Amino acid sequence: MNQTILLKSRPEGTPTLSNFEFQKDDKTLSPSEGEILLEAKYISVDPYLRGRMSDAKSYVPPFNLNEPVASGVVAEVIASKHDTFKTGDFVSGMLAWKTQQISNGDGLTKVSAELAPLSAYLGVLGMTGLTAYLGLHEIGKPKAGETLLVSGAAGAVGSVVGQIGKLLGLRVVGIAGTDEKANLLKSDFGFDEVINYNTTTDMLQAIKTSCPDGVDVYFDNVGGTISDAALFSINRFARIIICGAISVYNKTETPTGVSVQPFLVKNSALMQGFIVSNYADKFPEAMTQLSEWLAKGQLTYRETIVEGFENTPQAFIDLFSGKNTGKMIVKA
Amino acid sequence: MNQTILLKSRPEGTPTLSNFEFQKDDKTLSPSEGEILLEAKYISVDPYLRGRMSDAKSYVPPFNLNEPVASGVVAEVIASKHDTFKTGDFVSGMLAWKTQQISNGDGLTKVSAELAPLSAYLGVLGMTGLTAYLGLHEIGKPKAGETLLVSGAAGAVGSVVGQIGKLLGLRVVGIAGTDEKANLLKSDFGFDEVINYNTTTDMLQAIKTSCPDGVDVYFDNVGGTISDAALFSINRFARIIICGAISVYNKTETPTGVSVQPFLVKNSALMQGFIVSNYADKFPEAMTQLSEWLAKGQLTYRETIVEGFENTPQAFIDLFSGKNTGKMIVKA
Repeated sequence: MNQTILLKSRPEGTPTLSNFEFQKDDKTLSPSEGEILLEAKYISVDPYLRGRMSDAKSYVPPFNLNEPVASGVVAEVIASKHDTFKTGDFVSGMLAWKTQQISNGDGLTKVSAELAPLSAYLGVLGMTGLTAYLGLHEIGKPKAGETLLVSGAAGAVGSVVGQIGKLLGLRVVGIAGTDEKANLLKSDFGFDEVINYNTTTDMLQAIKTSCPDGVDVYFDNVGGTISDAALFSINRFARIIICGAISVYNKTETPTGVSVQPFLVKNSALMQGFIVSNYADKFPEAMTQLSEWLAKGQLTYRETIVEGFENTPQAFIDLFSGKNTGKMIVKA
Repeated sequence: MNQTILLKSRPEGTPTLSNFEFQKDDKTLSPSEGEILLEAKYISVDPYLRGRMSDAKSYVPPFNLNEPVASGVVAEVIASKHDTFKTGDFVSGMLAWKTQQISNGDGLTKVSAELAPLSAYLGVLGMTGLTAYLGLHEIGKPKAGETLLVSGAAGAVGSVVGQIGKLLGLRVVGIAGTDEKANLLKSDFGFDEVINYNTTTDMLQAIKTSCPDGVDVYFDNVGGTISDAALFSINRFARIIICGAISVYNKTETPTGVSVQPFLVKNSALMQGFIVSNYADKFPEAMTQLSEWLAKGQLTYRETIVEGFENTPQAFIDLFSGKNTGKMIVKA
């Protein structure tokens, strides 16, 4: 039996289960010439998908209503009439939220279950790792001895950003939402300090205290009041990577906050939106470095794995209350 | 008689005449070996000076209380014991607000009254022109056919930015505060369209209408609600030059507005604070190009010249209500 998850309605504010619809059918799928039949193994749920559920102008087109949601998926080839992909191969790519689907192979990459656990290709060796590496390098231009501040530090991207910062010789300060996350980031990921924004009453002062030399690079995954507070600590020539703004994705009104312009002009600072797909030419270089660090044990990662294809919408919704540590993945 | 203008108190909000104090003395100044005696001819008043009157951390140190204010000044050498500067030479540089002063020549540049009117060295051939040229090129990276939006368009920097945009083949839309300024920018400076923000009730829509292909480069001199409105029209890969934020310089509370982060991430857009002194290595190249355009009559400029050294503080204050068209200069 094949299951599909459709976008039934566009979320207003925080997404709910009622925005999604399950469709089941018993039709047997079989590939035509040049096609493969795929079975989903791991499904990535990511904050940026929230944007595609709205119909506002953005860098990727919105999902259509009553059509399947799509995201990064690792799947197994269970039947093939394709020259490149054989039965038993594993592939990674942007695929529909379906237990089984037909593909012509476009945009899919073969992945090896021996080199790394399959789920890693959705995380540290997938878009997550590439986002962390390329966002930090291409916009952040980090230099040893500088201070790197990371918000959403216990998230999939943030936890990799912080580790790369340490590998490059920076002082790394994270911002996360629980003491457990904060402790893990310090004990297992090498962060120098972590601020728990849920128990800190004065974020502005907390950042100043944790970053006594100011902030040279701010890797921003969250936006909102946390990012407002960070502005007060930026140094001259600071680089701010806007990778995400999870705190405002569910707002129904235009979000407001501290005006960044006076801070940028005072400090000759730079703030730039980062979308990993703009840097596709650098993927090979980044993958080589990430794989090497991973193989040497210099890069670690956490996953929050939710069991069951049917729990995909809930896993996505749980991202917005920070239920994940590291990459949130559904095991289909 | 020598007159000096001191900073008596730090402005709270909009500066007033009471923040300044005049000092007069009859002492005859005479240069020692290696020194020159200067008489101020033209004094530049600029919005950025407001920042130096506060004691907040910024890219230039604050003025000290009960000491002279300083800004760009063109002066005549009226006595010299210096090898480089002779009596009768004109020089430009950062000098105190004094009718006469002694200098050792450091940081001063000789300027020619034959090549251009002396006041131009405080404007189109001075920091103003350099700011316009280098801000636009180094951060804006303008390309022919793109749309350039300029706020504070009738100001000293804005009017040069718009003309350079036209010389480079861009569509140029300005934002200014009176119909007279708007008409002048279109008739004499070649702007394609100008929005009068004082008579426009919906800036967001006005920018959308004037920039039907969106905004690729936004040269921001003002900040505040005008810049908030511009965000809604930025294109993918837009570049926003934060050159000034005159609308918020006099605010006593931290200014707030629309959060820029979601706009930057959606559009892979860049926003960067620009301070001309960071680009000193590019000054010769920029001056060569500006002088060439000026000589060919391809670049025009307006000045608002206020007569009388004693009116310097009022001329500075008048910047914040937009009393100037083009560069505001005091003729000492």
